[in-house]
Amino acid sequence: MIGMEYITALGRKAKEASRILGISGGDLRSGALAAMAAALEEHSPKILAANEKDLVAARQNGMSAPLLDRLALNPARLRGMHKGILDIAAEADPLGLILGGGVRPNGLRIEKITVPLGVIAVICEARPNVTADAAALCVKSGNALILRSGKEAIESNKAIAAALRKALASAGLPEDCVQLVEDCSRESATALMCANGLVDVLIPRGGAGLIRAVVEQARVPVIETGAGVCHIYADAAAELEMAVSIIENAKTSRPSVCNAVETVLVHKDIAAQLLPSLAVRLAQHPVQLRCDEASLRLLQGDRNASAATPEDWSTEYGTLTLSLKIVSSMEEALAHIRRYGTRHSECIVTQDCTAAQRFLRETDAAAVYVNASTRFTDGGEFGFGAEIGISTQKLHARGPLGLRQLTSEKYLILGEGQIRS
Amino acid sequence: MIGMEYITALGRKAKEASRILGISGGDLRSGALAAMAAALEEHSPKILAANEKDLVAARQNGMSAPLLDRLALNPARLRGMHKGILDIAAEADPLGLILGGGVRPNGLRIEKITVPLGVIAVICEARPNVTADAAALCVKSGNALILRSGKEAIESNKAIAAALRKALASAGLPEDCVQLVEDCSRESATALMCANGLVDVLIPRGGAGLIRAVVEQARVPVIETGAGVCHIYADAAAELEMAVSIIENAKTSRPSVCNAVETVLVHKDIAAQLLPSLAVRLAQHPVQLRCDEASLRLLQGDRNASAATPEDWSTEYGTLTLSLKIVSSMEEALAHIRRYGTRHSECIVTQDCTAAQRFLRETDAAAVYVNASTRFTDGGEFGFGAEIGISTQKLHARGPLGLRQLTSEKYLILGEGQIRS
Repeated sequence: MIGMEYITALGRKAKEASRILGISGGDLRSGALAAMAAALEEHSPKILAANEKDLVAARQNGMSAPLLDRLALNPARLRGMHKGILDIAAEADPLGLILGGGVRPNGLRIEKITVPLGVIAVICEARPNVTADAAALCVKSGNALILRSGKEAIESNKAIAAALRKALASAGLPEDCVQLVEDCSRESATALMCANGLVDVLIPRGGAGLIRAVVEQARVPVIETGAGVCHIYADAAAELEMAVSIIENAKTSRPSVCNAVETVLVHKDIAAQLLPSLAVRLAQHPVQLRCDEASLRLLQGDRNASAATPEDWSTEYGTLTLSLKIVSSMEEALAHIRRYGTRHSECIVTQDCTAAQRFLRETDAAAVYVNASTRFTDGGEFGFGAEIGISTQKLHARGPLGLRQLTSEKYLILGEGQIRS
Repeated sequence: MIGMEYITALGRKAKEASRILGISGGDLRSGALAAMAAALEEHSPKILAANEKDLVAARQNGMSAPLLDRLALNPARLRGMHKGILDIAAEADPLGLILGGGVRPNGLRIEKITVPLGVIAVICEARPNVTADAAALCVKSGNALILRSGKEAIESNKAIAAALRKALASAGLPEDCVQLVEDCSRESATALMCANGLVDVLIPRGGAGLIRAVVEQARVPVIETGAGVCHIYADAAAELEMAVSIIENAKTSRPSVCNAVETVLVHKDIAAQLLPSLAVRLAQHPVQLRCDEASLRLLQGDRNASAATPEDWSTEYGTLTLSLKIVSSMEEALAHIRRYGTRHSECIVTQDCTAAQRFLRETDAAAVYVNASTRFTDGGEFGFGAEIGISTQKLHARGPLGLRQLTSEKYLILGEGQIRS
């Protein structure tokens, strides 16, 4: 299988690069990031020319306007990538942190420290800025990166990777700390998912289809990211204007991202007051409302409102569409979230302390909010700096994956000849 | 597929039980463990009778003496299981610990706390004491357990599980917090490995064959455990008597476990002094030595020494067998460990500080030792209380998996109406 041979060769090089990177000092890694940022600037004409090739091909293949926008680079976006790398470079070194330890009764001194994961594979879609971001996060945290992007962005990514690899070598690190899978076949993706012993962690960054494929096919350890059917529950004791403003923000500030809200659950006692003013506010964008029977009755005549289908409750719209449901109790809200939520971000709007405590306790999600927009689930907003994705699984790390989440741990045990009885 | 339907039913019950268990107080969970311990005592005649059935069948099927010993229960072993549960009950609650957090510039208060993983599936071989241990660790950490053991122990495990489930119900928790897979077919194991959405984590406890099957087939998140090809490197600056005593302990105190040493690497400068006295000490047990050419020359005439084959370097003997190799430098030792080690436990014996530091830094393993037996890699020895296994992967947790490692985390975010700009 050609895909597997190719990936194995990449994986071996990554493994060897990760060994050197993993024992390098923090200054060397930060210096490499500075060089990577400078290289992006220096190579910007080549990168923009390569991106133009991708854009021409994408237009010929009829790519939609939003996807073309994601694919497109320009000097401002390159400056953003440049700044992003420097921000990551400026963060504290996540390696060698002492997480705990102590002296055991037999005198053994045990210390737990952070170490790199090793080789991280990222499979992403056609957003070239992800390449620079992922590379910077991995190098800073001592991990070698193997990146496989969608073929739509391959020319852009080749140019970006070439610049980053040159910078790594100039900074005294192996250029194979960052490798791009240039074979965009399905076989190469499958091979990457099954490269046990070479890939320590696989992080898919993309839509539901990609995540599903990875879960079904991967044999290497995976951190699932991204799927976000997030809810806001407007409790009986919600402050109405606060609820409207949080829902508006969570739906409309950037509807395409995973921390945007998809379903609003409204307690029956405030539905008659809340829904009309909410509908007016959302009409300004305008947001399409998919309503259960009771909420549709309250919004009858609203031209943005229509009846929800059963599929609506589990749909991550990614657009200016919101599903609406009236619930008769917090139990019903919690049960709905349990059934349809993706364990990403869930919010209650309430002034009732006991209700807030209960919601925080009983809701199983990476981030549970009281009286704030779900849009804050983000590495930057949480104070982690950049992130490589949002984990929606329970193993390893939950929520934004920043530098610290790209580390593993190791126990150091210092003895003076102790043996076990 | 019958296996899948059966497992799905079990998984749904586990999910619901885990929801209730996950929001239960620590006192309730500790109380349930006390009841589980008492139930083992109360049901001991039934459990021993069931175990006798398993033993009769196993003898008829020609089970080997060491495996029969692992399968056998007796009053002393039941008392050990009883005490094990009470020890776990007495540990601190691992849930609701505040791991960190703070107030963001916009006033959002973010807190990271520990929460249960949810539903943990354990696939193990025929050791009935694992059932009680795993159940106690899971319930204490708020997780529902689905246990699938080898069919050789099925009668014993049914009796143990029945006692534990009765105790759970009497303590006010769902009995489905602990479920045994009574269908021991290969289909049920495969179904459990693929129960996405129902099983949050799968932990295989067993030999290399089981681990391999899980890595190849599982679609749910896995924590790999167990494989241990551990090394001791006797450096040029090793104290000889300390090296002999550590090697003897690491090989002979319990050869069947994963933290026992399998290969000793000896620096050429001390080989002529160390090997003869090491061989004399190991001959007392006696340990069979599989030697590289150079060490075989030094041990010529030793009746326990023979030539190693290439397979020896990657073999986890699990018996009183040790492979021996003379290396000309620490580089060679590190490279050998990199190539053949399973990232479990690795040790250097040396009085040279710089050598020790380098070994600690450059060796990639869950536990890296200076001057102590590898046999200390164990939850109890590390001060974690009991363990459910030793993780040899880098994701989630490395080394002994105690209560704390059976938790996930969740972010609680308290706002006053904050929206994202």
